[in-house]
Amino acid sequence: MLLHIVFLLSLLLSTSNASVQDFCVADLKGADGPAGFPCKAPATVTSDDFVYPGLAEAANVTNIINAAVTPAFVGQFPGVNGLGLSAARLDLGPGGVIPLHTHPGANELLVVIHGHITAGFISSANIVYEKTLKKGELMVFPQGLLHFQVAAGKKSALAFAIFSSANPGLQILDFALFASNFSTPLVTKTTFLDPALVKKLKAVLGGSG
Amino acid sequence: MLLHIVFLLSLLLSTSNASVQDFCVADLKGADGPAGFPCKAPATVTSDDFVYPGLAEAANVTNIINAAVTPAFVGQFPGVNGLGLSAARLDLGPGGVIPLHTHPGANELLVVIHGHITAGFISSANIVYEKTLKKGELMVFPQGLLHFQVAAGKKSALAFAIFSSANPGLQILDFALFASNFSTPLVTKTTFLDPALVKKLKAVLGGSG
Amino acid sequence: MLLHIVFLLSLLLSTSNASVQDFCVADLKGADGPAGFPCKAPATVTSDDFVYPGLAEAANVTNIINAAVTPAFVGQFPGVNGLGLSAARLDLGPGGVIPLHTHPGANELLVVIHGHITAGFISSANIVYEKTLKKGELMVFPQGLLHFQVAAGKKSALAFAIFSSANPGLQILDFALFASNFSTPLVTKTTFLDPALVKKLKAVLGGSG
Amino acid sequence: MLLHIVFLLSLLLSTSNASVQDFCVADLKGADGPAGFPCKAPATVTSDDFVYPGLAEAANVTNIINAAVTPAFVGQFPGVNGLGLSAARLDLGPGGVIPLHTHPGANELLVVIHGHITAGFISSANIVYEKTLKKGELMVFPQGLLHFQVAAGKKSALAFAIFSSANPGLQILDFALFASNFSTPLVTKTTFLDPALVKKLKAVLGGSG
Amino acid sequence: MLLHIVFLLSLLLSTSNASVQDFCVADLKGADGPAGFPCKAPATVTSDDFVYPGLAEAANVTNIINAAVTPAFVGQFPGVNGLGLSAARLDLGPGGVIPLHTHPGANELLVVIHGHITAGFISSANIVYEKTLKKGELMVFPQGLLHFQVAAGKKSALAFAIFSSANPGLQILDFALFASNFSTPLVTKTTFLDPALVKKLKAVLGGSG
Amino acid sequence: MLLHIVFLLSLLLSTSNASVQDFCVADLKGADGPAGFPCKAPATVTSDDFVYPGLAEAANVTNIINAAVTPAFVGQFPGVNGLGLSAARLDLGPGGVIPLHTHPGANELLVVIHGHITAGFISSANIVYEKTLKKGELMVFPQGLLHFQVAAGKKSALAFAIFSSANPGLQILDFALFASNFSTPLVTKTTFLDPALVKKLKAVLGGSG
Repeated sequence: MLLHIVFLLSLLLSTSNASVQDFCVADLKGADGPAGFPCKAPATVTSDDFVYPGLAEAANVTNIINAAVTPAFVGQFPGVNGLGLSAARLDLGPGGVIPLHTHPGANELLVVIHGHITAGFISSANIVYEKTLKKGELMVFPQGLLHFQVAAGKKSALAFAIFSSANPGLQILDFALFASNFSTPLVTKTTFLDPALVKKLKAVLGGSG
Repeated sequence: MLLHIVFLLSLLLSTSNASVQDFCVADLKGADGPAGFPCKAPATVTSDDFVYPGLAEAANVTNIINAAVTPAFVGQFPGVNGLGLSAARLDLGPGGVIPLHTHPGANELLVVIHGHITAGFISSANIVYEKTLKKGELMVFPQGLLHFQVAAGKKSALAFAIFSSANPGLQILDFALFASNFSTPLVTKTTFLDPALVKKLKAVLGGSG
Repeated sequence: MLLHIVFLLSLLLSTSNASVQDFCVADLKGADGPAGFPCKAPATVTSDDFVYPGLAEAANVTNIINAAVTPAFVGQFPGVNGLGLSAARLDLGPGGVIPLHTHPGANELLVVIHGHITAGFISSANIVYEKTLKKGELMVFPQGLLHFQVAAGKKSALAFAIFSSANPGLQILDFALFASNFSTPLVTKTTFLDPALVKKLKAVLGGSG
Repeated sequence: MLLHIVFLLSLLLSTSNASVQDFCVADLKGADGPAGFPCKAPATVTSDDFVYPGLAEAANVTNIINAAVTPAFVGQFPGVNGLGLSAARLDLGPGGVIPLHTHPGANELLVVIHGHITAGFISSANIVYEKTLKKGELMVFPQGLLHFQVAAGKKSALAFAIFSSANPGLQILDFALFASNFSTPLVTKTTFLDPALVKKLKAVLGGSG
Repeated sequence: MLLHIVFLLSLLLSTSNASVQDFCVADLKGADGPAGFPCKAPATVTSDDFVYPGLAEAANVTNIINAAVTPAFVGQFPGVNGLGLSAARLDLGPGGVIPLHTHPGANELLVVIHGHITAGFISSANIVYEKTLKKGELMVFPQGLLHFQVAAGKKSALAFAIFSSANPGLQILDFALFASNFSTPLVTKTTFLDPALVKKLKAVLGGSG
Repeated sequence: MLLHIVFLLSLLLSTSNASVQDFCVADLKGADGPAGFPCKAPATVTSDDFVYPGLAEAANVTNIINAAVTPAFVGQFPGVNGLGLSAARLDLGPGGVIPLHTHPGANELLVVIHGHITAGFISSANIVYEKTLKKGELMVFPQGLLHFQVAAGKKSALAFAIFSSANPGLQILDFALFASNFSTPLVTKTTFLDPALVKKLKAVLGGSG
């Protein structure tokens, strides 16, 4: 008699699941849209689609900022598509610096995993909210506001940043100004920085115009 | 002279409606996305796209639960795409039971059409909110919470459930546990149910692992 | 030993539920906001908050339109606050008419409970999508578009309308034009209707200006 | 040494930008969806995609309403896709009238550029909120409510309307009633207007049925 | 007989409008929330709540940037509360400059009213999208991205900016860096600017730390 | 001369920031609403409001599940209010188990910090997506679906869970069924579990009814 329920409910489920999805793993070959990527066909989705191993290894921080950011946005981790979540790994060598930047598309929650990190953001009212965080402490950075993370002391540090969007974006201030095609006269006019300084920084960082 | 307005406004409308849509009937052959399906071309949309006759007939309830759920989600009724609404018909024979389940993607509003239905949900604070509803009474079930509907007395009942999403999802507890590939050791470990019981129910409901 | 789990998880739950709510029953004495009313204190919420009996009885339709609409919006049914759902009961006597109207704040899903209802809406492209619905059939009406429901044949009918907002709003065309303080010169100017007609209808429906 | 940072961060950026987009210019050849059109490939996006010159010229207002509305919705200005914004230009000759209409999909903010405009909307409670606006003044019109704009005095006027959606829709009352396929018996039944009047207006405005 | 409809529908309307609002004019004395301010009591709302005259006058631009921005956000114009819209007036004297800034909470649509304005934004991919706009032309600036507006030629210009939020925020780069309490060592570390320069600019702009 | 800009822009900022907030730290003494708590007055907000130290310490796991979950939801960490983010710390002793549960209000992203964790969720289609995760690996769990986390091997493990809502909710299956006031006849009827078993588990876990 219990077979009836199996039959009935299976029928219901197979019917209703024809187009029911509890998730929408990104098909990155499809065209992006305002709400994200089209979904991979459910029948081809496996456990691996919901797992991302790419943040497991420490990144190389032998560079001028003594730091590295490794993203797990929808482009790297298609399983976050449509979930309003993504992540990044922050490796900071001794004195490492994540330069001033914004995420135009998401709020951020930082979890410090080891070491001490001095982090802060600047509000629209030009107030800096800043704190040195220990292992296990959390800090939030509201969407679109300039913020930074710096390894405190002379030690290295590790943190994970989680974002409120599968596609938070990342605008690094120095790169926006000096590694872009932002013309020197316009940089000068709109930032009050000295043209000579702007040219010097553009030469170093690869900006044009 | 009135022809001027016809000409002018028609022009405006035909221009602005080139891509203007007040609705977005699902093209189920397109790929689903986080916000729903792509829209059917407006020129091919007819009145029938906004109407669903599939819940008009009583479902067969000669099965072990003495009940049937017939969905009108976006997969069955493409006209609800993007509207934040869908529906289901609940046929309950005498003593019929809609087993404990959740809708992971939507809130639910139940309208009792005939008979008496005892319905309830369990909150995160482990409180059961339960009531026996009469014909014409409404009850809401918040998103993602376990809930049930049972025909009260020895009589049959009918209700319509309306959801706050075109794709509310449906997770029936017994089927999630005992009709899935959820391995017996993990079911046991994460539910504290006895392995023998788990195996017995999996045998009946068709679960594997 | 199982008492440990009780202790541990209860602790967790009482902590985490200090401010956790799965629902937000409206406190109608609080000030409304863009997302709805403030929530009633969870400790005072009972099963009755999630149930609305006010649509159980047929409304009196002995009036000129031979029809009545009974709302279960957040103002009547505080349990729908924040759920993106609300409802209304449509009683139609023989030949009853729900006059042309819009819901500025919600999409609508109509379920016909008995009788036949001719219903339709007009799109931005000036196309009427119209159908005569039977018992158990569904029809959707996209947000903000003019629509109507009329009892078909010489029989009465009953339907429930469910909305995609706790506060869908209701703008009845005749009342907006002729029962409001919309001045006759402006009505005339913006609708091309004859001033004499406007004055006559305003006299009947109680409009001023 | 600064080259390291260039290398490192460029790598990061080129990786993370594989699918990162800060914007989603509409690919109008793709199928529309509930959240808008699919995005144009970022590599093909240019400054021109974010600029719309089509509202720069005054429209011809030698027509019966002495007015013209020129839309810059997503269909005309693909750069607004996904941004929750679009615009229209309102040219009003002396005594010009934008007839009573609604935007089913958006709120509106009007900016008067020259002249005086008498504008107003009607609420669900049948109250007309109306004001004569001067150059530089703003007025808002909530979504889905009937509203109008009329040139005050005997002078012409200019305004820009901005909408809270890339696809606000536009339902002009007279056209919905008298330029559509809305059958005369149904118009009559649902508006209480006289059949003779309805027929006359349909003849003028091109309605059928 | 028509009095019946008046009676019936008035009843319906007065009932349903007890808590129905088509709008939510901000009560700025109430506490702000994530979705905006609580609503002013509907009975006290007048036409003036939907109109803002504060952008009608040209602002004084006799200052170092030869420019002024006058906001009409929810704090100035309570009628935009909950509507996803707000505005600002940009007065640019000859050569006037709106310095590099972001709106962390909104997309922007710019309408040029007179003069020529060179405007642009920088994407996450460090590409500058820039254009010199004429009177009547529109340009959009996606949320959270650095952008600027400069009067082109030696002439003055006027524009209105409309935002996709009642509370778009405004972070001016120079002020965030040099007029805040952002400590010189941290500015230096996170921007690669020279400490001497930072100190000089902080002295001028009033920064501390 | 630069003092002019200071004066001008300060004026602008102090004006526009009267009610501008880039964030909305919860005032937990205010009434919760559908979008979260009212905001703390900006002038009283400090850096500490954006930081949460409460997840820094390992929780006591000497209990029957050898595990503990420590939440940092809006009730504990008011700074996440309105940000669409919150967190929890998962301490797992050797063989520790987070029992089967759902978050009715949020998607989840898990970051494993040390040890190995076997985690999985069950879809509406009754498919278990399961994986054993290593340190640094991520896994996502879609909203409202049953899921679990178990320490793999005989070792302990640590993870942080981040949620897509400030108030994700938590429904633990065993507690919903057996620690609530869910009456034994209804549990039995809606789960097909044996009444004797239900009574036994309710006795242990403290359920009533």
